[in-house]
Amino acid sequence: MNVVNPPEKDSAALADPRQARLAFRNGLKRHTSCVAPGYVQANLAILPRDWASDFLRFCQRNPKPCPLLATSEPGDPALPVLGEDIDLRRDLGSYRVWRDGEHVDTVQDVSDLWQDDFVAFALGCSFSFEQAILEDGIRMRHVDQGLGVPMYRTNIQTAPAGPFGGDMIVSMRSFRPADAIRAVQITSRFPSVHGAPVHVGLPHLIGIRDMDADALGWQVPVAEGEIPLFWACGVTPQVAIGTARPPIAISHDPGYMLVTDRLNSSLAVM
Amino acid sequence: MNVVNPPEKDSAALADPRQARLAFRNGLKRHTSCVAPGYVQANLAILPRDWASDFLRFCQRNPKPCPLLATSEPGDPALPVLGEDIDLRRDLGSYRVWRDGEHVDTVQDVSDLWQDDFVAFALGCSFSFEQAILEDGIRMRHVDQGLGVPMYRTNIQTAPAGPFGGDMIVSMRSFRPADAIRAVQITSRFPSVHGAPVHVGLPHLIGIRDMDADALGWQVPVAEGEIPLFWACGVTPQVAIGTARPPIAISHDPGYMLVTDRLNSSLAVM
Repeated sequence: MNVVNPPEKDSAALADPRQARLAFRNGLKRHTSCVAPGYVQANLAILPRDWASDFLRFCQRNPKPCPLLATSEPGDPALPVLGEDIDLRRDLGSYRVWRDGEHVDTVQDVSDLWQDDFVAFALGCSFSFEQAILEDGIRMRHVDQGLGVPMYRTNIQTAPAGPFGGDMIVSMRSFRPADAIRAVQITSRFPSVHGAPVHVGLPHLIGIRDMDADALGWQVPVAEGEIPLFWACGVTPQVAIGTARPPIAISHDPGYMLVTDRLNSSLAVM
Repeated sequence: MNVVNPPEKDSAALADPRQARLAFRNGLKRHTSCVAPGYVQANLAILPRDWASDFLRFCQRNPKPCPLLATSEPGDPALPVLGEDIDLRRDLGSYRVWRDGEHVDTVQDVSDLWQDDFVAFALGCSFSFEQAILEDGIRMRHVDQGLGVPMYRTNIQTAPAGPFGGDMIVSMRSFRPADAIRAVQITSRFPSVHGAPVHVGLPHLIGIRDMDADALGWQVPVAEGEIPLFWACGVTPQVAIGTARPPIAISHDPGYMLVTDRLNSSLAVM
């Protein structure tokens, strides 16, 4: 049974999280799907200290889209709790730079933008629960097709904290009904990587009118006999940054995650 | 918050499981919904010893519709593991009598039918997980309306064992999507009372063409904005008895369950 995508030709070294980070640090730009299988990957948000406190409260109030795995010391680009050698300025394949809430640039290195008051937030990512679903023998069409997961902006409002707030972004995966129930069970074990879905079956109730046209990024159809599940998505903090309009912020570029040394299985709560 | 139906006028004594069994033993005939709140109630199947081994294998192979809580000693109408004083011949409000797979009679006492080779099987019942759902603040329409739960015969085939087999019966409860996800989580904790649903959202896939016309017993509509969940149902063994056609069998009458001394909460696996 093919439970994970085959390793790509350039990726023998990318199976190891430390080697993968080194490759990104040295200029490799590629999605982290299939990189360091079995290891936690993280969404990233970096904000000046004056904004970090409100953002931290935003995460605390919205644990499904913003499950906090780790926070950095102010000004320190290390994050030893997730990997001894992590350099948050260079270890992602691609970063988004935000100014006044606008995504103004996409870069591979933020060393020249680094500020000594920057605080980084590493948030759980659905790659971790996708591994658990795949290891249960349940296939997902976007994985089979080598695509990113379809995402949608919903009418579900996050709980605001200071200037941070706005709509929740969700990711969608469709399953046969029995597999959908199993996927709820599996992902419930992983609250620190979005946990159970936030919605099932009736997309119009959360403001999705057209499953194809409204998809952000990738379109993946829901087949006959399948039911869509929607999980809170780690792109939601980027909406919150757009709402809050801090003078500067840095995030991962969707799909280009922080690869950590922590095992996915260590996140299961039972 | 009204989490359980109010006690009825005749039921002060019925709050205690032993008193409730005594009332049934002395001739009371009423559904056991709201009887002995918090205590496990059980589906019942009684078969001659020659048929019991195949039926036991049937239960083992179909744990979702037939989750075994207890089996009796051959010929012994006691079931001390579920209640010290249980008399399986008289402690249910209503029994069904089956001959050659046909439901031929409904009685309140099976003492005169009792055989010294009878083996009784007590199977988990959805009342236990319904309590857990209600205690989570999630309402169910059939409970609010004081009705039994709607049941459906499906095209899901049970795994046969000897002469026992046939279609699975399911019970249906509809929820708003977020509550449906929560209901999957809650019921997953209770595998010995049917556990997680077997189906969600697309009834035609399991052979249900008309949610009203196909309902067995009670019709309860699925409201706009709700999604139906389907659980394996403890009436399934009665279909299996109809398939196997043993010369005699006794079951509970749906809704008239065996009230036990075991607490529902003791069934949670985590």
